[in-house]
Amino acid sequence: MELDLGFEFHAVTRDHKTKARSGKFTTAYGDVETPVFMPVGTQASVKAMTPENLKAAGAEIILGNAYHLYLRPGIELIDSLGGLHEFMNWKSPILTDSGGFQLFSLSQMRDITDEGVIFRSHLDGSKHFIRPEDSIHIQQMLGSDILMAFDDCTPYPTTYEYAANSTKLTLNWAKRCLHEHQAKKKNGQALFGIVQGSIYKDLRKKCAEDLQQMDFDGYALGGLMVGEPLETTYEIIAHTVSILPEDRPRYAMGLGLPEDIFHCVAAGVDMFDCVVPTRNARNGCLFTHQGKLIIKNAQYAKDPNPLDLECECYTCKNFSRAYLRHLFLSGEILACILNSIHNLYFYIQVVKKIRTAIQEGNFFEYWQSFLRSQHEMN
Amino acid sequence: MELDLGFEFHAVTRDHKTKARSGKFTTAYGDVETPVFMPVGTQASVKAMTPENLKAAGAEIILGNAYHLYLRPGIELIDSLGGLHEFMNWKSPILTDSGGFQLFSLSQMRDITDEGVIFRSHLDGSKHFIRPEDSIHIQQMLGSDILMAFDDCTPYPTTYEYAANSTKLTLNWAKRCLHEHQAKKKNGQALFGIVQGSIYKDLRKKCAEDLQQMDFDGYALGGLMVGEPLETTYEIIAHTVSILPEDRPRYAMGLGLPEDIFHCVAAGVDMFDCVVPTRNARNGCLFTHQGKLIIKNAQYAKDPNPLDLECECYTCKNFSRAYLRHLFLSGEILACILNSIHNLYFYIQVVKKIRTAIQEGNFFEYWQSFLRSQHEMN
Repeated sequence: MELDLGFEFHAVTRDHKTKARSGKFTTAYGDVETPVFMPVGTQASVKAMTPENLKAAGAEIILGNAYHLYLRPGIELIDSLGGLHEFMNWKSPILTDSGGFQLFSLSQMRDITDEGVIFRSHLDGSKHFIRPEDSIHIQQMLGSDILMAFDDCTPYPTTYEYAANSTKLTLNWAKRCLHEHQAKKKNGQALFGIVQGSIYKDLRKKCAEDLQQMDFDGYALGGLMVGEPLETTYEIIAHTVSILPEDRPRYAMGLGLPEDIFHCVAAGVDMFDCVVPTRNARNGCLFTHQGKLIIKNAQYAKDPNPLDLECECYTCKNFSRAYLRHLFLSGEILACILNSIHNLYFYIQVVKKIRTAIQEGNFFEYWQSFLRSQHEMN
Repeated sequence: MELDLGFEFHAVTRDHKTKARSGKFTTAYGDVETPVFMPVGTQASVKAMTPENLKAAGAEIILGNAYHLYLRPGIELIDSLGGLHEFMNWKSPILTDSGGFQLFSLSQMRDITDEGVIFRSHLDGSKHFIRPEDSIHIQQMLGSDILMAFDDCTPYPTTYEYAANSTKLTLNWAKRCLHEHQAKKKNGQALFGIVQGSIYKDLRKKCAEDLQQMDFDGYALGGLMVGEPLETTYEIIAHTVSILPEDRPRYAMGLGLPEDIFHCVAAGVDMFDCVVPTRNARNGCLFTHQGKLIIKNAQYAKDPNPLDLECECYTCKNFSRAYLRHLFLSGEILACILNSIHNLYFYIQVVKKIRTAIQEGNFFEYWQSFLRSQHEMN
């Protein structure tokens, strides 16, 4: 019988001017310090990055996705090859999303019942039925270190009544997820609950409180960045975090731009994931300490400087903006590779600097200086 | 004034059963042992490979292309950024093709005169005129270690008369290239002549002899693999090499499959380049010591083995066929990266093993055992 080391989280330092905090959690595949940015490896690959590139970019934990991996290549296959860590050769922590969000955003013919969701695959139209128990089973078979509860992502805009019913369903499913998880979890696997409730504060409060009663290992904020104004997003996040327990990590799903991350950290969020650094990299939009840089612009044609004057990543240490512009305009795959290496390094470094700033008591000052440094470059 | 170290080539070992030989040449950016396989970096990037990946694959020298780089990003730009080595951060030898072949295969509205070639860019239709002197000037500005003469690539099939005139033009241009090169070369830059003559042995002989009289640093075989039967290719190569001097390297341009390389080495060829390893990698066709492997095939769906059971490359040491199949079917960029790493490693290692076998006196035996090992895997 395997020893269950148990998932543990400790908040280490608390900021005085904001609700920011630094902390650490422990998994079977190693410790992770928070705040942390988690690169997204939806299909068992963080796009255009090898595991070595990810390590060099400072990644400590990455995301996988139950919905995508269930449909392709299939869970039994990954399990037979030793689980997701082994399959993609990533020997550090993995968090898997439950598929709730992808059923909301990707699948065709979605039919939600109390029991679960009937849907057609976005790949081949094949019909599937997933219950909360199935999602947990899938994530357990993947062997992820942090599992997410199967939730119903409420669309925006929606009526209060619809949101209330949707949140009720999420709470019901959360309970079933927890039951399934506790019966079969192994090797210190953690399960996070997801707070829904759309933009309605009382629904968010009710959801956060009820989930807390169930006692999850961590709490995520879901159903955000789905079309609502950014100010509302921030408001809902601050409101929800204030209800969540101090001794559990808080995870803002799918957030966001660097400035959003600062905002959320200030509200007390510990964990982030977003496709923006890798997707923007492939589109030639680079994040730098001087602001956003659109590499195709003519002003960089002869520019011998690195992308980011303050960056120590492989791309910035070895290549000029002029070369990166040439690669991008020529449609070279190397453009995707080098741009992704830079953008992920930038994101991860900024979040690490946030962590250090919290520990050194100057998070607010770092936040302000970061914002001042972001000029419009193009 | 810079010291001209001079290009030097020495044949070190000669095989007894075939005309194979091992040797070494010296450039300002380092020595290269032959036989050698040179990865193709047409647009200042070997597709999907970082310079570190190339080094790890064992690459000692790579190709650039005067035609492509002249059109995009432009030669003045690369020169202003310190030359091609600096631009793409490849601090080892570079050989540049003159553009003769690309004018034959890519450009629109090609008009050949004794003076040079008027053509329209394949990128934007803009009109250009390139003389042999311009091609040399372009390659000098790129700073390549081995320049190729500007030639007229004879199409196949063609009449004897057309081929004779085309070869005459190539010889005339070769003389002008040499003149331009000798006046302005620096830092040990070498210039290779290109033997044309289509499938006509007397034209090949005449071209090889006349080029030899001009005294180039090396000799290439051009105008091959343009549609003629493979047996004819082999015959023309063996015939031409027999006329070329012993003390200069011989380069078979654009060749070929691994089995072609063995054939050419046996005929006395020293240098090879081909887009096949990287292009096939992107299409999911992998070279292995057990034969060619089409990664999308269903038989690899659950296969935990590495691509090649005898390979030490990064891809084979870290990933299963099942994972690589998943990446390929999912359209992940990482499929291109990992497949390219493997195929280039395979090519470079096979040519290195050929070199060692020549030195150890068992090239013929290695050739035969290689052919026996190549089963139909799919």
